Amino acid sequence: MKQNLEIQIENIAKQAQAASRALAVLSSTVKNTVLKDMAIALLGNQAIILKANQKDISKSHGENKAFIDRLSLNAARIKQMADSLLAIAKLKDPVGEVIRAWNTVSGLSIHKARTPIGVIAIIYESRPNVTSDCIGLGFKSGNSVILRGGSQALNSNLAIFNVLNQVLQKHHLAEGAINLIATANRKAVDYLLKLNNYIDLVIPRGGEELIKKVVRASAIPVIKHYKGICHVYVDEAADLNMAQNICFNAKCQRPGVCNAMESMLVHRDVAARFLPGMLKKFRESKVEIRGCAFTRKIASWAKRATARDYRTEYSDLILSVKVVEDLDAAIAHINEYGSHHSDSIVTDNNFAAGKFLKQVDSACVYLNASTRFTDGNQFGMGAEIGISTDKLHARGPMGLEELTTYKYMVYGSGQVRP
Amino acid sequence: MKQNLEIQIENIAKQAQAASRALAVLSSTVKNTVLKDMAIALLGNQAIILKANQKDISKSHGENKAFIDRLSLNAARIKQMADSLLAIAKLKDPVGEVIRAWNTVSGLSIHKARTPIGVIAIIYESRPNVTSDCIGLGFKSGNSVILRGGSQALNSNLAIFNVLNQVLQKHHLAEGAINLIATANRKAVDYLLKLNNYIDLVIPRGGEELIKKVVRASAIPVIKHYKGICHVYVDEAADLNMAQNICFNAKCQRPGVCNAMESMLVHRDVAARFLPGMLKKFRESKVEIRGCAFTRKIASWAKRATARDYRTEYSDLILSVKVVEDLDAAIAHINEYGSHHSDSIVTDNNFAAGKFLKQVDSACVYLNASTRFTDGNQFGMGAEIGISTDKLHARGPMGLEELTTYKYMVYGSGQVRP
Repeated sequence: MKQNLEIQIENIAKQAQAASRALAVLSSTVKNTVLKDMAIALLGNQAIILKANQKDISKSHGENKAFIDRLSLNAARIKQMADSLLAIAKLKDPVGEVIRAWNTVSGLSIHKARTPIGVIAIIYESRPNVTSDCIGLGFKSGNSVILRGGSQALNSNLAIFNVLNQVLQKHHLAEGAINLIATANRKAVDYLLKLNNYIDLVIPRGGEELIKKVVRASAIPVIKHYKGICHVYVDEAADLNMAQNICFNAKCQRPGVCNAMESMLVHRDVAARFLPGMLKKFRESKVEIRGCAFTRKIASWAKRATARDYRTEYSDLILSVKVVEDLDAAIAHINEYGSHHSDSIVTDNNFAAGKFLKQVDSACVYLNASTRFTDGNQFGMGAEIGISTDKLHARGPMGLEELTTYKYMVYGSGQVRP
Repeated sequence: MKQNLEIQIENIAKQAQAASRALAVLSSTVKNTVLKDMAIALLGNQAIILKANQKDISKSHGENKAFIDRLSLNAARIKQMADSLLAIAKLKDPVGEVIRAWNTVSGLSIHKARTPIGVIAIIYESRPNVTSDCIGLGFKSGNSVILRGGSQALNSNLAIFNVLNQVLQKHHLAEGAINLIATANRKAVDYLLKLNNYIDLVIPRGGEELIKKVVRASAIPVIKHYKGICHVYVDEAADLNMAQNICFNAKCQRPGVCNAMESMLVHRDVAARFLPGMLKKFRESKVEIRGCAFTRKIASWAKRATARDYRTEYSDLILSVKVVEDLDAAIAHINEYGSHHSDSIVTDNNFAAGKFLKQVDSACVYLNASTRFTDGNQFGMGAEIGISTDKLHARGPMGLEELTTYKYMVYGSGQVRP
């Protein structure tokens, strides 16, 4: 006999699938009205949400400062969550968009039209604002969502979920359009990942270990956001002032995030001119350098880089530095050691730029700009549900459009196949 | 220590990945020239290929007629294979296409550009023509392919592969762009499916059991082509003559294929008018009917349909028939029992048509046409590598475009994130 929790999770997924059929045909007007009401409800229920959040925080006294910071809500953050919902309401509805339309020789008219994916499960860290962001993006793109947030944010997530679900109920929308798995029991995720008959996509966010675990256990397709091992390559034809600005920004502006630079590559013909000033600047900002032999000749204080360093996402003020033979060596290094996330070349040589952008096998490839721009908001998508390091379905920042698929709607007048 | 075969397979995959980097930047002109030379080489080496094919056929005397038919080559079929390569040469190259381009407030110019996926493994049945089709489609879309055909076609596949690979060598193209796993050892597939560091996508074709096995074993993303349980729903507002033509074509024109109708749904208000003539016509063509109670009142000779019938892909002259309450019941039945492949409504009612096309959750949804049109050639894609019943990445017939992904190429002039 199935365990009780397993049956509960299966019922949630079944209900989510049923609700997704109704969501798929909701008009944009209705969806936008609901999103605006959700924003109002968040602000109106601030006290309840903050009280629940306080409960979560008081239970997390063993955690580090960064963890508590991500977990904590306040009036300004709830305002931000509400603003995100309003921003999502303003975005173009992707559902129903005809991507392409053509007629066939048999006289059929074929419309390749955007549709919701169906049911999307999102597993995420203890960050309560993600709860409302995912509900907003999922709802606008016509998908049912099943949310499973970090257990240490359970009270906060439940409070936010209840406030938003009441708005759906007020509008008499199908129960099951949004779902929260409100248990700290880790088995819940195991059960969820088996339900490929009801759930169409799993998006795990958070640490690499969690993502690997989900991939191993899941019978459902997974879109992954693995590490961000991002590079800036300073070409022989680089404007070295620009290169210094870009490298410094890519490493130091916010070192803890996935689009920060972890590895800097420098063409050997400019290394002697570029590295002394650059490394001095990093040292002044307390960036630990782990360099190749050439780098350590210039900066004797630098540590020695190992192959392992070149595969490491430090998420901290640490940088690996390597001097390379040429452009081909830089491209080969990035494709071998990188994580296919975001990589940049600084150069004034159009040929080198074109080759780099074509051959580096990453979601986002930059010419003369910081890797820190890889972000749904910076890209003008309004909001993002994550950044995919996969190649299939969605790559890079994922917004509303990436939460849709398509179907072929074929209009005939009695055609049969000869 | 790893087994010898395992090391061989890993080396093939590594080499395929290295070759894919070179393939990704080949010009359309070079690719089209190679494809044309491949077509010529197939025709020029007809004797060698037919001899190898004869060897395969002579070993397969225990197999049924349909199997032998799929395995057998002759001059006309080799001509068809060559024609397919020429057709692929004429298709627009998807690689490099800028899907969308825009500027951001920070002054970046973002190009969302189509790129090859990388390395694609294709596991398929004993049909030698698939070998050259997959090589042609993979090469034109800039992907390395690793082919594993049915072991009973091994000699034929090897002959075709050698002929085509010699053309690549003549053009001095990277070794490893096309690969054939030339062993009958079933372990080869197990080894292949573990190589997620080198292979980006697996496309299994063939029986449901094979596909399920691949999905279970694979650490690599899989695009599946499961069953085709296709429906035609005859609405209360259908032109009943048109409905009879469409249903007859969908069932009888080629019953063994995935886009043939397996289940016919009829609105109860037209059942008494529509079913007698329709069922008589099916009976005359030796179609076995498995019907609901209502159907069996009209045709006492029909067998009783079980829930299992409604979930069965007969691939034969057998049809399940069900009379339904209304449009909603038809949609619910299709979403519950179908395989999300191809489903059609026959109606003159625009509202019913719109609801059906929107709510039926299938890759191809038809109004007033036979489901038999779901096919890359019929859709005007030139060729197809399969039909996806998945929702992610590619849905429905898969041509060149579906063998690509995208990357964001971001052009800056020194931008750093504030």
